[in-house]
Amino acid sequence: MKFKAEINVMPLKELLDPQGKAVLGGLKNLDFKTISNVRIGKHITLELEAANESEAKSFAEAACKKLLANQVMEHFEISIHSA
Amino acid sequence: MKFKAEINVMPLKELLDPQGKAVLGGLKNLDFKTISNVRIGKHITLELEAANESEAKSFAEAACKKLLANQVMEHFEISIHSA
Repeated sequence: MKFKAEINVMPLKELLDPQGKAVLGGLKNLDFKTISNVRIGKHITLELEAANESEAKSFAEAACKKLLANQVMEHFEISIHSA
Repeated sequence: MKFKAEINVMPLKELLDPQGKAVLGGLKNLDFKTISNVRIGKHITLELEAANESEAKSFAEAACKKLLANQVMEHFEISIHSA
């Protein structure tokens, strides 16, 4: 079966996110005064073949651990839908 | 009220995504043979003050249009939760 995985890779809460800080500065300059705490990560979508949803999830998790996320600095969330 | 916005900014379907193509190549080299169609965009989380959810959504939409997304090359999706 074909599944679609949506993966969010975000910098860990404990770490500074300089890209987010820069964007927050930009938003303040554009008069978005009420916005705070901007954090920026990656959103990855991919399609994969697997026997069932839990196999698809474990594939996606392995891909995150091996390549997509750096677990020293980032955490990831995976959601799987059938495609 | 305080709201949390989760924004996904993705390259348009009609456009090539070279970053996704490169990651797909990397995954194939790591023996993830069943994965296809990788696309990579940005995941942005931010907090904002607004009177209600629809005002929060329109704030976030304005921020996307003005700064966060380049609508010539990217589309965005916003989801708002109360924080």
